[in-house]
Amino acid sequence: MGLFSKSINSLDDLFVHTLQDMYYAEQQIAKNLPTMIDESSDMQLKQGLQQHLGETRNQIKRLEQVFEMHGQSAKGTTCAAMDGILEEASDILSVAKDVDVKDAAIVSSAQAVEHYEITRYGTLIAFAKQLGRADCASVLQQTLDEERAADRKLTAVAESRVNRKAA
Amino acid sequence: MGLFSKSINSLDDLFVHTLQDMYYAEQQIAKNLPTMIDESSDMQLKQGLQQHLGETRNQIKRLEQVFEMHGQSAKGTTCAAMDGILEEASDILSVAKDVDVKDAAIVSSAQAVEHYEITRYGTLIAFAKQLGRADCASVLQQTLDEERAADRKLTAVAESRVNRKAA
Repeated sequence: MGLFSKSINSLDDLFVHTLQDMYYAEQQIAKNLPTMIDESSDMQLKQGLQQHLGETRNQIKRLEQVFEMHGQSAKGTTCAAMDGILEEASDILSVAKDVDVKDAAIVSSAQAVEHYEITRYGTLIAFAKQLGRADCASVLQQTLDEERAADRKLTAVAESRVNRKAA
Repeated sequence: MGLFSKSINSLDDLFVHTLQDMYYAEQQIAKNLPTMIDESSDMQLKQGLQQHLGETRNQIKRLEQVFEMHGQSAKGTTCAAMDGILEEASDILSVAKDVDVKDAAIVSSAQAVEHYEITRYGTLIAFAKQLGRADCASVLQQTLDEERAADRKLTAVAESRVNRKAA
């Protein structure tokens, strides 16, 4: 969550700060997914990531909607966690030369991305409900459902094909 | 996954590299949990984190056991993802002044830690099974079960008490 422009004095502040963290994180994911798609060889993996890039762009719009519903202007704050997850993803791709091993590494990296999103959206939904913002929680729940589905799909791709080819 | 001493040419290399990533990550968690415990006010949260510190130390030993079973010496490799997650945890604690809001932030941070562990242990277990190392998968599964239980417990603490007090 990097640099703070103000202190966090209430659950509302923490909710808004976590929205900003995810707004930055989703934008970084949207920037990095095209490289992961280019580097994928397995067609099912490539298509799954391509679909998730579309979902990610829509999730950014949903965050903008929640900022607006909550009377805040949409802005991001550096998310050191997502920066680190994506740095690892990039590093492993640079040293994994075998295409099948590279696919296995891409699935692993993409699932690390998904799990960060799953935990933060879960937190955001719990905060929103506690703050009496069931309307915001409902919008965020759509994204959480997509993240969980994307994670399950990646597990299926890994276990049915990618890891076997890499072994 | 930071600096690589060698390239990743096989699923076995990727398995060992991911073990090293988690060996570093677990050590960083063990170093950072005491601060989160000190900063917690809710007794149920504090006790839960204290219990998880004990589990974390045991999980480090399990990783050492898996390294040995797999004929490798235990060593870590910088995990930029965990460094980023823990940097965010530390940053938010430095600006959250209200004790109840601080508790809510600690739960959120601890769940981000848990989810990184859940995704990486899930990957390690899938790799181990694919490599014919059901014995290693079985040891790693014990840790994954603990991480999932810890995450569920944090959700229960947040939803039953901590978020309400912070609101």
